[in-house]
Amino acid sequence: MSEDGRVTTSATPSSFLLAARGQRPATHPVWFMRQAGRSLPEYRAVREGIGMLESCRRPDLVVEITTQPVRRHGVDAAVLFSDIVVPLAAVGVELEIVAGVGPVVAHPVRDDAGVAALRPLTPDDVPYVTEAVRALAASLPVPVLGFAGAPFTLASYLIEGGPSRQHLKTKQMMYAEPQRWHALLSRLAVITAGFLRVQVDAGAAAVQLFDSWVGTLSEADYRRYVLPHSAAVLAAVADVPRIHFGVGTGELLPAMAEAGADIVGVDWRVPLDVASRRVPGSVLQGNIDNAVVATAPWEVVAAAVDDVLARGAAAPGHIVNLGHGVLPETDPDVLTRIVERVHAAPVL
Amino acid sequence: MSEDGRVTTSATPSSFLLAARGQRPATHPVWFMRQAGRSLPEYRAVREGIGMLESCRRPDLVVEITTQPVRRHGVDAAVLFSDIVVPLAAVGVELEIVAGVGPVVAHPVRDDAGVAALRPLTPDDVPYVTEAVRALAASLPVPVLGFAGAPFTLASYLIEGGPSRQHLKTKQMMYAEPQRWHALLSRLAVITAGFLRVQVDAGAAAVQLFDSWVGTLSEADYRRYVLPHSAAVLAAVADVPRIHFGVGTGELLPAMAEAGADIVGVDWRVPLDVASRRVPGSVLQGNIDNAVVATAPWEVVAAAVDDVLARGAAAPGHIVNLGHGVLPETDPDVLTRIVERVHAAPVL
Repeated sequence: MSEDGRVTTSATPSSFLLAARGQRPATHPVWFMRQAGRSLPEYRAVREGIGMLESCRRPDLVVEITTQPVRRHGVDAAVLFSDIVVPLAAVGVELEIVAGVGPVVAHPVRDDAGVAALRPLTPDDVPYVTEAVRALAASLPVPVLGFAGAPFTLASYLIEGGPSRQHLKTKQMMYAEPQRWHALLSRLAVITAGFLRVQVDAGAAAVQLFDSWVGTLSEADYRRYVLPHSAAVLAAVADVPRIHFGVGTGELLPAMAEAGADIVGVDWRVPLDVASRRVPGSVLQGNIDNAVVATAPWEVVAAAVDDVLARGAAAPGHIVNLGHGVLPETDPDVLTRIVERVHAAPVL
Repeated sequence: MSEDGRVTTSATPSSFLLAARGQRPATHPVWFMRQAGRSLPEYRAVREGIGMLESCRRPDLVVEITTQPVRRHGVDAAVLFSDIVVPLAAVGVELEIVAGVGPVVAHPVRDDAGVAALRPLTPDDVPYVTEAVRALAASLPVPVLGFAGAPFTLASYLIEGGPSRQHLKTKQMMYAEPQRWHALLSRLAVITAGFLRVQVDAGAAAVQLFDSWVGTLSEADYRRYVLPHSAAVLAAVADVPRIHFGVGTGELLPAMAEAGADIVGVDWRVPLDVASRRVPGSVLQGNIDNAVVATAPWEVVAAAVDDVLARGAAAPGHIVNLGHGVLPETDPDVLTRIVERVHAAPVL
């Protein structure tokens, strides 16, 4: 960061896109899931008194918040500040994001009428996204990364009515009412594809599809009930590199790659060399333990970074990231030091 | 179950122990984690108005609750009704089990004095366990399975002060104060070993060490910070078959076997044939998806049971179980049907 707070160009502006395509960048690209968020005092300052959904709908705030971690840390990609329920709200689903709880849906979707009410998303539903992504693409020295939640994770919020530990109502529909389930996921895939398409058309150079909760499924169930719908989403944005990520997905990595990912995101549980044996053709993203980053002394963090860099060399390409989102308790200076260390490491 | 409610002998009384030792039973052994619990109306009836810790300390209740699933389902092992915090309370840790929350520790352990206060457990601390296990071993037609929480999971409750999603205080001590961490886990290993020893000496024919939360760690951290302590526990009861289980532990299975497990418990995420390639010498336990059992129509459950039986044949021995505990929402009749189906399946 420069003294006067301007955004400075990182050493290798396109290292993210080179690695994403399996080409050799001059330095290792690095960004952090949830880099635009509560770990940053400047984020907490601009969000003060403004609800989450409102923040996602104000282009000025989206631009500022998306830019903050680029300015502060010098990361190699700017992930659009948004929330996975933004496209649902945009097509008319009544919901709130309750602080300390998460998304709460007024009328959970549990019958055919609820499914039928989910209409496709058009660019006119999210003018604030188009405006923000255009402004970011024009002003930032690094690629803008589009963002959406995947159909399974969106379905879990819609069916449960909010966050859930066991996702039992979701699984009940999946197992007991498979026709309704597939109808619901088809519609969510159309909405999600539309939401990502808007971002790409406005200038997003790559996208990440987050399937936060899909790690609760076995691979067989993932393939049967989820994969075709996530594949439909990813196929709609095949003109840019596509990252596909979930937590606890060690056994799902091959299926998540087959869904159409160019880059497979890996959580902290699976060492990248092990992950690369499971998805040999894929560029990998990850996977420094976010709890290590939030709690450990610097020498432990540095060793974790070095280990991830060494293991990532097993893949055809490697985008450095955490193994899950930045925790709010994280000291942002540690993130900046990680970026410096990653950029200083030789590319082998 | 016989009409008058007496416990009836299952078709193959020692199938559990034969499979546990890698020998060939006449029928597949099956039991369910949390089989003695809230899915059973007779459990809810006897627990009415009686707190969890008090229930665990009343031998008459422990015997009745432990026996209920044997009587109803005809399972092949009776896991002692207890709670992972029982041995902590027995050595003087002030704690409560709060309904809907879990264990709450009055004075979280975060300094050397807190660690030093954790004394070893002797048989005199848990006379109710000795009495209950003796009575069960004398009366039941199936082996009694001893039960304890592993040092990491116990440490997480002691340090956090209660249940936690991210275990950040736990990880902070682990990474930033490794000496204190190892001192704490050593003491917890002594307590846990003592608690299992009491059960084995009273007649438990096998034990299960539950490390519920350890799936939050990478394998490298597991080996460095946890494995030696769990190994000390398992070494203390090497005269009986030892099951070692955690959730989300797909990448930890080899290390958990190395800790001294004769039987490795596998959650529903890892197919048993895949698990067996990771721990080729180990008998496996698991791993029917507990959410499928709680929510799916019978034909889906039956297919899941058959799939688990087929994949389990890859291991040197297989004890059928769920991939995690019975959910309270589960219809107990479905569990009984699973036992019947497992017992009817040919042993190849």
